[in-house]
This record gives sequence, structure tokens and C-alpha cells, in this order.
Amino acid sequence: MPRYAFRIEYDGGPFCGWQRQAGGQPSVQQAIEEALARLEPGAHRIGAAGRTDAGVHATGQVAHADLAKDWDPFKLMGALNWHLKPAPVAILACARVADDFHARFSAHERRYTFRLMARRAPAVLERGLVWQVAHPLDLQAMQAGAAYLIGRHDFTTFRSVMCQAESPVKSIDEIRIEELPCPGGQEFRLHLRARSFLHNQVRSITGTLERVGAGAWAPERVKEALEAKSRAACGPVCPPQGLCLTGVGYPSDPFAG
Amino acid sequence: MPRYAFRIEYDGGPFCGWQRQAGGQPSVQQAIEEALARLEPGAHRIGAAGRTDAGVHATGQVAHADLAKDWDPFKLMGALNWHLKPAPVAILACARVADDFHARFSAHERRYTFRLMARRAPAVLERGLVWQVAHPLDLQAMQAGAAYLIGRHDFTTFRSVMCQAESPVKSIDEIRIEELPCPGGQEFRLHLRARSFLHNQVRSITGTLERVGAGAWAPERVKEALEAKSRAACGPVCPPQGLCLTGVGYPSDPFAG
Repeated sequence: MPRYAFRIEYDGGPFCGWQRQAGGQPSVQQAIEEALARLEPGAHRIGAAGRTDAGVHATGQVAHADLAKDWDPFKLMGALNWHLKPAPVAILACARVADDFHARFSAHERRYTFRLMARRAPAVLERGLVWQVAHPLDLQAMQAGAAYLIGRHDFTTFRSVMCQAESPVKSIDEIRIEELPCPGGQEFRLHLRARSFLHNQVRSITGTLERVGAGAWAPERVKEALEAKSRAACGPVCPPQGLCLTGVGYPSDPFAG
Repeated sequence: MPRYAFRIEYDGGPFCGWQRQAGGQPSVQQAIEEALARLEPGAHRIGAAGRTDAGVHATGQVAHADLAKDWDPFKLMGALNWHLKPAPVAILACARVADDFHARFSAHERRYTFRLMARRAPAVLERGLVWQVAHPLDLQAMQAGAAYLIGRHDFTTFRSVMCQAESPVKSIDEIRIEELPCPGGQEFRLHLRARSFLHNQVRSITGTLERVGAGAWAPERVKEALEAKSRAACGPVCPPQGLCLTGVGYPSDPFAG
């Protein structure tokens, strides 16, 4: 059966996350599997690089599925987008890939962006796409706090107690924080890049850095929290709606050419 | 009665436009006037710099209203935002202004941004905030077409037949078009700046420039259309949801300091 890779965008708001749940709540995986079943009857299985949580968005999720027919990738993309409507899920690219391509296990890099708005007036146009706090934040302080997290560390402090990864040791390659113009306030974007992340790692880091930006934590306390290797040392885990999986890296780009 | 100026953000999607309509459809003006009535009982009247159409958004609308009480502007902003919920309208700034300040007549500049997405896959995260076309667009061609519209011209071609302005002569100070990264396609932002605009002028210009970007019109045809001074020479008027009023200029910034 030919294997296809998909680059996928979705609004995580109405979903219980990427992954199908036993309770039958709507998941992104289920929405795409049902669209695949409209093209080729029967059960389908699509596996993604990042199993995003409820409410988390994506502009660069990657997943793969096997189909019976030899589809033209461009037509397959169009047909899936047609059947996905009106769900807020879009296939941005589609490619035929080798049988041993695996969206999750072949990936060597995940990129996330977290949007954090700091202003008193409620987010209106960006509602559901940002985490909002009502007080100003200090960019330099957040950058100083983030610097302690770059590199290979035991991230026990910054992972969910439900995390199923065997080891809490991960390497974070980049945490770049930029400030963008925002009418009536501030908007920050935190860009994180790593081979892989632990469960709730990005939201644990962002929630902690927000405390630093607010002045409640000195930047050095991030280092102490990391070294404590204790979940209790983490700042508050922030809500999901500011988070977006923006890209997944592979040894060779499945969508190139 | 003390006069207050407000800087306002709104999602135009659920509204019939800024202005109250006789039919009683929800308008942004009505939403704010009703919030004012929660603070000071009785009828209120708020006047805006730009009477945006149905579906058009704002991040920098400016309006003024007279109130009986001597409000602290910061507290007034918070109280209005509280009473505006859950309508997608937010007061970003509030200031006490001179009695002769008039949001519309004191303004000497309006700035609009139009977001135009060119890709096959449907807009998901930006749904309702962009106008989407399915074919690629040429940035340089759109810039060349736009250049013919800069300066003082008779814009009869580019205004609605319903436009109530006495004269079709307007000066456009700037049309800056930038291309931004967009997963799976292109995004363009058209930034337009003028003392004032005619009814449907921005959407008439954007719809025409899209034809140029698509290659259906040569850039020079924009010049011919302008010189024809005929509504029939205009390209198709584009839909409202990509349009946003981003700012209004005054001789002195009412919100400074």
C-alpha cells in the first residue's frame, strides 16, 4: 500500500487533541481518518509527529497514512480538504513517501510557537489563539530565564506527572522570544525547537517564564527550578490556546520538490 | 459634560458594521452605547472616525462620547470592557479630551490593512480574518498596479455607487504591499493610508489589485481604470473579512501620555 505524508493545519479549539479518545470526543485524528474513509471505504489509521493536547493548534503538524490506491498527491490533498469541511482542519501539503517513512519516529525536530498577550483589554481578534495576562511583561527577563533551559537537561521539573516518556532528559536547541506590536499592550512569541518534547514541557516552560516576565520570579529561579528536578518547583502550567505546532523536521523534507 | 475618546478593537464578523441600523441588526456602535448605558442610565451616542462596513474589523477605531460623570479614564476602560463581554469588542485605550475633539471631523488620517491569503487549502486559523483566493499572486505586479493610485485622483472608478461623499477626489498617501510567510501558500498585507477614504474604496482597490496579482490584468490597466472615472471600469469588489481599520491620526494623539 502506498504511503502518504501530510502537512496539516488545525484550530485545536474544538478538539480533545490530536489523538482519538476512548470517550468519543472529537479529535483531529478522527476527523482526518473519517475524511480518508470517504475516499477509500474502511478503517484508516493516521499517525502524527506530535500528539498535541486539547486546544493546541498546528500550522505544521506532519502525519502519515497508507492508502490502497495510487493517488496523485495534489488531488488527494484537494479531496481531503473537501471532505474535512467544515471542521477547522486543512491539509496544506501531501506527498508520496517511502514505506519506511514514519511521521513520528523519522522526525528529528519539532518546532512550537507560543503566543502570549499582555494587556488589560480582552483579546478580540486573536481570541482562542493567545494566552492573555493583564499585566506587562519584561522581555529581557524572560530571555534571561529561558537561557538556563537551553541544552541537554533533566526536565523532570517541566513535565507533566502523566508524561509517559521513559527518560526526563531532553535537549532544547532554541528558545527565542520576540516582542511584536500589539494595539494597547504587548505580544510575545516564544519559539521553541527540540528533537522532541516531554508532555506539557512547552506549557510548563512558558508558564514559568511568564512568572519571570511579570517580575514574580528572578531569572535565576528558573535555573534553581531546573536543578531541583521536581515537578513542585515548576511555575504554573499555562493554558493551551496560545500554543501551536509550527513545524516538524526530517532528514529529508518529504514535501520538497 | 466631559468628553472621552476611545481606541477600539472589534471582530466585525457578527456585526452589520459600525453604525446602528434601522433594522435592529447588531452593530458595534449599539454594543458600546449599551455598555455606556450600564454605567450611566439613559440614551448614549458614540461617534466613530470610520464607519466600517459589515464584516470589517478594527484594531484602531477611534470614537468619542460625552458622559455626565467625571470618570477616571482607566477605570472607564475597565468598566466598559466588563459590560461589553461577551461581544467581540474591546476598549484598548480611553482618554479625557477637549470638548471640541471630534473622532470623525478632527481626524486627518485613516490607516487600513487588508489581509489576502493565496493558497488552495482553506484558511483555518485565520478564518474570518483574511480574504482567500486559490491561485498564486505576483507581489511585484500588485505593487506596480498600486503605484498608479498614489496621490490625488478622481476615484469614481473605485467607489461604491452608494457612496455619499460630495466629491470623488481623494488623496491616497500610501499603498504598501508586503508578503508574509504563510504555510502552504502566500499571505499579502496591503497597508493603505489616506486622509479619508470613499465608500468601498479599499475593497475596490484590493479586488482590482488581486486581478493584477493573478495576471488577469496588466498593471497598466489600473491606470486606465482610474482614468476612465467609471465604476464599470473597476475590478471586482472583494469581500470584507480581510479588511481592518488599524489606526486613525489626529493633530495631537488623544491617547498620548
